[in-house]
Amino acid sequence: MTEVVATARRSRITPEREAELYEAVLDLLREVGYDALTMDAVAARTRSSKATLYRQWGGKAELVVRAIKHTKPDHSEGIDTGSLRGDLHASIRLDDDCTIEKNSSLMRGVAMAMHNNPDLRRAFRAQLVEPEMTGFNLMIRRAIDRGEVRADCPALEFVVHMMVGGFATKALLEDEPPSQAFLVSYIDAVVLPALGVPTS
Amino acid sequence: MTEVVATARRSRITPEREAELYEAVLDLLREVGYDALTMDAVAARTRSSKATLYRQWGGKAELVVRAIKHTKPDHSEGIDTGSLRGDLHASIRLDDDCTIEKNSSLMRGVAMAMHNNPDLRRAFRAQLVEPEMTGFNLMIRRAIDRGEVRADCPALEFVVHMMVGGFATKALLEDEPPSQAFLVSYIDAVVLPALGVPTS
Repeated sequence: MTEVVATARRSRITPEREAELYEAVLDLLREVGYDALTMDAVAARTRSSKATLYRQWGGKAELVVRAIKHTKPDHSEGIDTGSLRGDLHASIRLDDDCTIEKNSSLMRGVAMAMHNNPDLRRAFRAQLVEPEMTGFNLMIRRAIDRGEVRADCPALEFVVHMMVGGFATKALLEDEPPSQAFLVSYIDAVVLPALGVPTS
Repeated sequence: MTEVVATARRSRITPEREAELYEAVLDLLREVGYDALTMDAVAARTRSSKATLYRQWGGKAELVVRAIKHTKPDHSEGIDTGSLRGDLHASIRLDDDCTIEKNSSLMRGVAMAMHNNPDLRRAFRAQLVEPEMTGFNLMIRRAIDRGEVRADCPALEFVVHMMVGGFATKALLEDEPPSQAFLVSYIDAVVLPALGVPTS
């Protein structure tokens, strides 16, 4: 529903102009961080009116999360390798280490700012976490249908927690992004065994 | 080594005075957050000299992390139930939901501030994460010695990531602390199966 409204609101600007706006928002984020970023600064940098920005995106949290989402491929689309292990590995390999590295500091900064910003937390969850989890859940649904994962496996409730553990721990504790190789090992050592899927 | 030096430095003040100082630091943290907390404010609130604070703790990051650590029981001590499942469940039950709730906003605020504060990240890791992991690792070492966990189990490399996934995901995405019941289910559904330990 939100998605439909947001798309309708944005339909008045061209995709090129939209991409240009998002790039400017990401540049500002890298320069000043989430808390210090203002809609005035976005308006000035992109030669837009603040009224336009608010009309198109609703607010700073939505605009920032949209801009980040714009840089990320949708993990759920087009992957269907015939096994859960193959699907999860393929989803990890969509972003190369260089892309992960480039966006991770930005993502971490925004994730950290969520603590004091309920709007940002809601937008982050709705626009970034939920679509990602929808993708993973589709893969798991197919695995259940194929008989790879039992429908009553207790780990099914904790897929998001396992994934956050793999993706966020290095960032939280070491301030460095996980590499593809790390995530593939984590999937094989933790996620698949917890779901009862043999990895060898 | 750091531990020994810090203990020696603090030995000049009484445990009561130390506890009083930590309480004041936590009050200030709750009031203003990590970034706005100053050593001047701590000195004024506790009627200490800044020189004393720096001499005893070395800096703001160490003082804040020490104050948090003071509120947390040491999970590793005294737990040895004879099974890994028993040990992990007992460690979760050390903090009741009320204590978890009371400290979680504080912990989250500090965890979020780590992103921009490498000193704080180092102190958080050294004083809070590593001792906790040492406790879990001792439990797992005993489980390997008992033959409960295979010494070459691939999930052994990811114990910290699994734990952070369980403890931090609700805080990050929902801004609420995990309950004891949640953590016990997570241990049974994810951590033990990944380590190859049957839970029923």
